Amino acid sequence: MVLNYKAIMKLSGIIIIILGGAMIPSLLVSYYYDETDTANSFLLSIVPMLIIGGIIIRTVKVDFTHLKIRDGYAIVALCWTLVSALGAIPFVISGYIPNFIDAFFEAVSGFTTTGCSILTDIEALPKGLLFWRSFTHWIGGMGIIIFAIALLPALGISGQKIAGVETAGQTFGKLVPKLTQSSKILYLIYFVMTILEILLLALGGMGLYDAMINTFGSVGTGGYSNYNASIAHYDNVYFEIVIALFMILAGTNFTLYYFVIRKRWKEFISDSELRLYLLIILSATMLIAFNLWLSNSYDTMGESLRFSFFQTASVITTTGFASANFDLWPTFSKMILFVLMFIGGCSSSTSGGIKVMRILLLLKYIKRGISIRLHPRAVISIKINDKSVPSDTVSAVINFTFLYFAVFLIGTLLLSLDNFDLITTTSATAACLGNVGPGFNLVGPVMNYSIFSDLSTLLLSFLMLIGRLELFTIILLFTRQFWNPDK
Amino acid sequence: MVLNYKAIMKLSGIIIIILGGAMIPSLLVSYYYDETDTANSFLLSIVPMLIIGGIIIRTVKVDFTHLKIRDGYAIVALCWTLVSALGAIPFVISGYIPNFIDAFFEAVSGFTTTGCSILTDIEALPKGLLFWRSFTHWIGGMGIIIFAIALLPALGISGQKIAGVETAGQTFGKLVPKLTQSSKILYLIYFVMTILEILLLALGGMGLYDAMINTFGSVGTGGYSNYNASIAHYDNVYFEIVIALFMILAGTNFTLYYFVIRKRWKEFISDSELRLYLLIILSATMLIAFNLWLSNSYDTMGESLRFSFFQTASVITTTGFASANFDLWPTFSKMILFVLMFIGGCSSSTSGGIKVMRILLLLKYIKRGISIRLHPRAVISIKINDKSVPSDTVSAVINFTFLYFAVFLIGTLLLSLDNFDLITTTSATAACLGNVGPGFNLVGPVMNYSIFSDLSTLLLSFLMLIGRLELFTIILLFTRQFWNPDK
Repeated sequence: MVLNYKAIMKLSGIIIIILGGAMIPSLLVSYYYDETDTANSFLLSIVPMLIIGGIIIRTVKVDFTHLKIRDGYAIVALCWTLVSALGAIPFVISGYIPNFIDAFFEAVSGFTTTGCSILTDIEALPKGLLFWRSFTHWIGGMGIIIFAIALLPALGISGQKIAGVETAGQTFGKLVPKLTQSSKILYLIYFVMTILEILLLALGGMGLYDAMINTFGSVGTGGYSNYNASIAHYDNVYFEIVIALFMILAGTNFTLYYFVIRKRWKEFISDSELRLYLLIILSATMLIAFNLWLSNSYDTMGESLRFSFFQTASVITTTGFASANFDLWPTFSKMILFVLMFIGGCSSSTSGGIKVMRILLLLKYIKRGISIRLHPRAVISIKINDKSVPSDTVSAVINFTFLYFAVFLIGTLLLSLDNFDLITTTSATAACLGNVGPGFNLVGPVMNYSIFSDLSTLLLSFLMLIGRLELFTIILLFTRQFWNPDK
Repeated sequence: MVLNYKAIMKLSGIIIIILGGAMIPSLLVSYYYDETDTANSFLLSIVPMLIIGGIIIRTVKVDFTHLKIRDGYAIVALCWTLVSALGAIPFVISGYIPNFIDAFFEAVSGFTTTGCSILTDIEALPKGLLFWRSFTHWIGGMGIIIFAIALLPALGISGQKIAGVETAGQTFGKLVPKLTQSSKILYLIYFVMTILEILLLALGGMGLYDAMINTFGSVGTGGYSNYNASIAHYDNVYFEIVIALFMILAGTNFTLYYFVIRKRWKEFISDSELRLYLLIILSATMLIAFNLWLSNSYDTMGESLRFSFFQTASVITTTGFASANFDLWPTFSKMILFVLMFIGGCSSSTSGGIKVMRILLLLKYIKRGISIRLHPRAVISIKINDKSVPSDTVSAVINFTFLYFAVFLIGTLLLSLDNFDLITTTSATAACLGNVGPGFNLVGPVMNYSIFSDLSTLLLSFLMLIGRLELFTIILLFTRQFWNPDK
């Protein structure tokens, strides 16, 4: 057998139960706000899920230690798809998103922490449902953390600095115990971050419900808001600063926080990826601010800085919150934001995109290439954090980047069959693949993704999953080699 | 001394004389059409150039055998810039393009065989000047052929199959004698191609003057026309087919014609780059034709095929002729053309862009990357034409591609300061860097490049040169390492 189908079945059972359980907070929120219909929708989702999941777990007996890397890929891909399909159920049952494809898109967008919506009027939804919608970001963020640590080493970027997990060989099962330990630390960080942001927002006068929604959106770098105008709804500098800072924290390599906990400040501060990440944020903020100011988009340099900082933080971390309609900004500013969509945050963070670590490596690769032109016989190694990067890691990063652009191109071509303009088409593809959320023109920050055909909605859901799972996890499943292991 | 300045001076003298001589045909055309003012403009350019060039050659004594690769880069970059600056003189003197920056742009666009124009009404120019404008394409095409053979091996893609020229070491001077032999064959092919197309167009009823203009535009893959409507002016299927075929021939690796001459058909037909090139043309033609037909852009599938074939050939070879206003086509078709702008024709041809050979190698690289995910210990080599490609060639190609996109991004960002829309900005940058010519929206096939500021006009000229000279030739000149050889 190519795959360990029994193990996959058993894991599906576990996932179904976990997701059923994950809906309980939203059920409680519905009761709290006396939204009986919404509460019933959740009950109709939760109860069958717990029953079906329970039956599967009881009946399927399996030994997980024999899982291979191949099974790992299949499980991860299936897991995210299944979770999204199940997560869509309350949207459909409640009648607020009757089309299942749309509801699936909304759930994929949530779990992948993308944050683009097919809803034309978000504020028309009951609070319980909006809570679930944002809570998917938070769950997704947790999922990404374990994914980034379990699979990223096998995918060529070892963001792994904690438990000394080696680059994975063939056995996926053996990896799991080592991971559990480090995951615990990371989940703790994620929890602390969540509580802290909710508190800070509440202290600034934001209601607890809104504080939770915005926190889920920022620590998961998702970007779902409960208002049509997103963060611009509040028009509050304090909220913007808190949210921006937490987006940046969530876009930082989580394994770096381990250094913070151990008070190894020097290693934290000297991390090359972190430095480039902060440098990009600083440069983009300044460039956009000057552009906004000089083009009279805002009256003062202060206002320009306020909006440019928030939007830079939001887009590079691939969150997608908006504190202004940046689609009206001058072309230079929009172009910078478009580039940031591709860059994304740090590796092993909850953000999407190509990731700063890969960009850093590519910049060093280009620099080395130029040197080699002048000194053809020189042997120059690529170093990051004072360590030579092995050539197979370099290859993996290059491959990832080309594949990223290839998927972007194919996605754009397929999406263009809907015949919207080039900017809408390319930015929608880039925003979904990079898990950002809003794009430009018809999918700009005050618009939504309801314009696309059902097929395109599925395509965009697929792009969000591909982007979230670092391409290979999904793409491998479509290769002949994957299903012919002996070849 | 970092560079051999004496040799550079001497070569400049030679270039000035050659370019002065190259203007004589245009002078004769001016006399033929009784355009005395234009003729005088040419005389005022030619005479001083011959005198100054002559003086330089007589006074500077130099031994060329001591030239290094470093000097080679500098000479090539200087040569193209100087030729463009000198080629701009008749436009300025005649008063038809009074602004020197605009005239320089027009000349760069000519010599780099790009074909984008700042002229708002091409037909207002005298025939002698339009002849010169198109003749720069033809000269540029010759320049590229020698460049592709002299420098490309050193730049990592060895399109070299004729004279057995080895990948260049440090000595540029030693390369030259070997090159002379193979260049002769290639120039012969270029001449034969030119004569043949002029004849075929004339046989179809096109006037000799027009036939020459269109031939210069197609064999050099330039795209300057003497009509505002470009090839659409004739509305003649025969002309379109002849021009399209010659664009495709000019976009083919010229060293392959050596196989044709030697009747080594099997090697010609089995060439991987040629096959992919033709496959892309076929696929793009069919996809665009169906899209045009299904979207009712044209009444019949026949008409759709006619226009899609011509435009595909024109854009992939980076010629830029237009037989229709493709800017009005549906988004899917435009997106395909946009992608073709980046791909470009074959290596060692007169076309620009990334080149099919590099795309082929990257596709194989991506495929290998996917295999490695599943078989981490496998050693898989990349083969082209049944030969393993050395890893440093692979690196050079990867480097080139990343650099291409980096230059594209930086170019787009700088150009966006002019604050035209994103499509105009990105397509203008891509069309100049890829030496295509027209882009979309404000720089579409029936528009022109007169909208940009002087700074942006210079930037676009620079992008055309960078693209034409395969990036490194120009970029190296801006590195510290180039000017500090001992470091």
